[in-house]
Amino acid sequence: MKRFVYLAIALVAVVGFMSCGEPKPYKMVNGTIICHTPERPAGQQDMLQFAAEPLDTVRVGFIGLGSRGKGGPKRWAQIEGTKIVALCDLKQEFLDRAQGYLEAAGRPRAAEYTGSEEAWKELCKRDDIDLVYVATPWASHVEMALYAMECGKHVAVEVPAAFTMEELWQIIDTSERTRKHCMMLENCIYDFFELTALNMAQQGLFGEILHTEGAYIHSLDHSMRRTDRTWRVDHLRKFRGDAYPTHGLGPLCLVLDIHRGDRFKTLVAMDTKAVMGPDIYASAHGEKLDDFQNGDQTTTLIRTENGKVIQLHHNIVTPRPYSRDYALVGTKGYATKYPIQAFRIGNDVPEGVSPTSLRAHPFMSEEERDALLEQYKHPIIKEVGEVAKKVGGHGGMDFIMDYRLVYCLRHGLPLDMDVYDLAEWSCPAALSSISIAHGSAPVAVPDFTRGAWKKIEGYKFAYTK
Amino acid sequence: MKRFVYLAIALVAVVGFMSCGEPKPYKMVNGTIICHTPERPAGQQDMLQFAAEPLDTVRVGFIGLGSRGKGGPKRWAQIEGTKIVALCDLKQEFLDRAQGYLEAAGRPRAAEYTGSEEAWKELCKRDDIDLVYVATPWASHVEMALYAMECGKHVAVEVPAAFTMEELWQIIDTSERTRKHCMMLENCIYDFFELTALNMAQQGLFGEILHTEGAYIHSLDHSMRRTDRTWRVDHLRKFRGDAYPTHGLGPLCLVLDIHRGDRFKTLVAMDTKAVMGPDIYASAHGEKLDDFQNGDQTTTLIRTENGKVIQLHHNIVTPRPYSRDYALVGTKGYATKYPIQAFRIGNDVPEGVSPTSLRAHPFMSEEERDALLEQYKHPIIKEVGEVAKKVGGHGGMDFIMDYRLVYCLRHGLPLDMDVYDLAEWSCPAALSSISIAHGSAPVAVPDFTRGAWKKIEGYKFAYTK
Repeated sequence: MKRFVYLAIALVAVVGFMSCGEPKPYKMVNGTIICHTPERPAGQQDMLQFAAEPLDTVRVGFIGLGSRGKGGPKRWAQIEGTKIVALCDLKQEFLDRAQGYLEAAGRPRAAEYTGSEEAWKELCKRDDIDLVYVATPWASHVEMALYAMECGKHVAVEVPAAFTMEELWQIIDTSERTRKHCMMLENCIYDFFELTALNMAQQGLFGEILHTEGAYIHSLDHSMRRTDRTWRVDHLRKFRGDAYPTHGLGPLCLVLDIHRGDRFKTLVAMDTKAVMGPDIYASAHGEKLDDFQNGDQTTTLIRTENGKVIQLHHNIVTPRPYSRDYALVGTKGYATKYPIQAFRIGNDVPEGVSPTSLRAHPFMSEEERDALLEQYKHPIIKEVGEVAKKVGGHGGMDFIMDYRLVYCLRHGLPLDMDVYDLAEWSCPAALSSISIAHGSAPVAVPDFTRGAWKKIEGYKFAYTK
Repeated sequence: MKRFVYLAIALVAVVGFMSCGEPKPYKMVNGTIICHTPERPAGQQDMLQFAAEPLDTVRVGFIGLGSRGKGGPKRWAQIEGTKIVALCDLKQEFLDRAQGYLEAAGRPRAAEYTGSEEAWKELCKRDDIDLVYVATPWASHVEMALYAMECGKHVAVEVPAAFTMEELWQIIDTSERTRKHCMMLENCIYDFFELTALNMAQQGLFGEILHTEGAYIHSLDHSMRRTDRTWRVDHLRKFRGDAYPTHGLGPLCLVLDIHRGDRFKTLVAMDTKAVMGPDIYASAHGEKLDDFQNGDQTTTLIRTENGKVIQLHHNIVTPRPYSRDYALVGTKGYATKYPIQAFRIGNDVPEGVSPTSLRAHPFMSEEERDALLEQYKHPIIKEVGEVAKKVGGHGGMDFIMDYRLVYCLRHGLPLDMDVYDLAEWSCPAALSSISIAHGSAPVAVPDFTRGAWKKIEGYKFAYTK
């Protein structure tokens, strides 16, 4: 009998011990995976519509000046009301290049941080910087964003911000606690077609938008086979899921008013086997793997609380023309960008054509389309589109992104993308990975606003007037 | 104590009673829905590569001569080696129209069956018919196919064959037992682009095909609002899921060698809310519903045993140009049909363009594409394409379908589509419905061949030579 008593005590001890640890990141309930949503710490408030004190001059420090990062200082040097205070990179040649951009624009030299893996921390600690602009490889985004906020700086961080739910919650909690902006540098929301289609959508041309499609389809075969730049293929080696969801997703979330009246509810994902990925890895590393994780094409579906669907594709390894898909399926119209920019508005059947004919519901003509694109040109494009095209950066959208960030910071306005956008647009990486690991099981997407997703009605760009 | 004994007995009785009934159609195991697969009855064999005795003349009876059915007798009257023995429809005007086609082609009048909901059974019972050709509304497909096979006739039945797994198994079991063909009339596998792309795929131009896309996107708004033809919207009222998967799926399954070396393994589906569907229903019936089931756009993903993915869309209610999507994503190339026919083969970057540029991986030119389409023109198109275009029926593909059916029956060859194709291409209707009903849960797709999906190596059209 004593034995049973001890056994029972041992059992209580084990169960008690296990339930005292960290909460499980997720569990399956009736076939749906439920992710842990940490409670908002007492006294902490959401960052919806958060606006910081206006800044006369936005003083910025750049971390990461390599392939993606090189454009930042170059573009910022063209934007009024900015001061490029500091630059950080491990490579002196990148620092030199960035200083060259400043010099060419008649800007003073910036302070340099280099020489150690920790040099960026010194940049963050400066007391004459308002914003830290992070364009480093994926693995360092979270640490840098958190540290910069703790140092009292606003943060702009490249996509995707993070690959785990825990990290996304850390970013949200840090932003909410420190009352600092943490914006993801999702340039694609500023592309010309996307901005204009958003304007059309907000003016009701497509009716109620029910189904949307986005993607990152970009053959990176050539660059990933290089032996000197393997960080991306190294990531794909270990990560199964959509590793790069934000470019496709961001523009769709604005159209769908995500956390401005709607929210992600359920996500499922499915991938193909990995064939080209391991082949590219073998070229880059001279090593054949049999445990390469990332499928060659990954598809993710998200259903929102209001019954809308978002479809996402990721494929950077097979020979396909570049595409971010971008399709809006509405009750009154349809828009698509790839491979052709085309609209259908209303459902009139051309004269003399039977309504059951396969030709009964054509796209509008290219002339009509161009007229519509002109008529609904987004105010932001009207304001800054020409300058943006001149300065460049993915056809101008990078400049618009930086321009808007500076505009909002200078005028003390909410930024175009808040920390919840950052989390929502990044989370399909973590969640598609979980879904696929469980045989494409549905995952309940947490509400990153923790209850406030209906507080704002509809997406708006902030303006002073 | 006695009470417990009685309780235990009652429990045994209840459990025993419940487990004695019909097997449950499906159950969830570790988050995946497992569908019941009935055992193959003893002595029954599969129908893979099944070939019936050659028929000198294919004697056919048509059931259903309305909107979709009217073309059958018209086309068959142009095909050598056929005898149109009998026609069945509830409407005399449709019978008259069909007789007119026969007369115009110099064919003798056919026997007529009409006047009762059971008239078609008399047609099936005739002993001078080899094949029953069913083009009636969806709800009668299963009953007619089963009855005709029991009467010793081969069956060709319109799409989709059935909406439940039980019915699909009934069709398979009946075909296996009676040794009669049961082919689904999936015309889209014979469309010109699809046949040629299949030829290119089989000759390796796209490398290993990993991801594919198909759809039925066809605005039927105008026809479904009619008060005199409500069968389709009536079906959608009660059916939540992809109600019409076969047009998109059929051509992809040939490319992927489904049950010829690969098989469907997992299916998930997600739909949008229903907005236009109930609106159309209200027009057709003058009644506003609040329980209309079918989402305006439904997306289904299927993963195969060999790690390939198929994506399907269904949308017949919002204003979109017609599309069956048709995309093949391979390790060496890419093909797409809608909205433009376009290919990329290999991954060469144009001279002078950086490989990271968004313009680095273009489609081949229209001239190159046309040359490729000519070079790889499918043998069937070469043989019968010109005649098919003249006879018509969805641009000729309906004629090719009938022509091939007659050819195979006359030469005693396996048909282009067997009863397992019928089940596989139809099953996403039933399975998407189950997945959506369980919050987009993954469904394990049964192996309709019951173990024989690797017996045939690769898809082939049968020929005498």
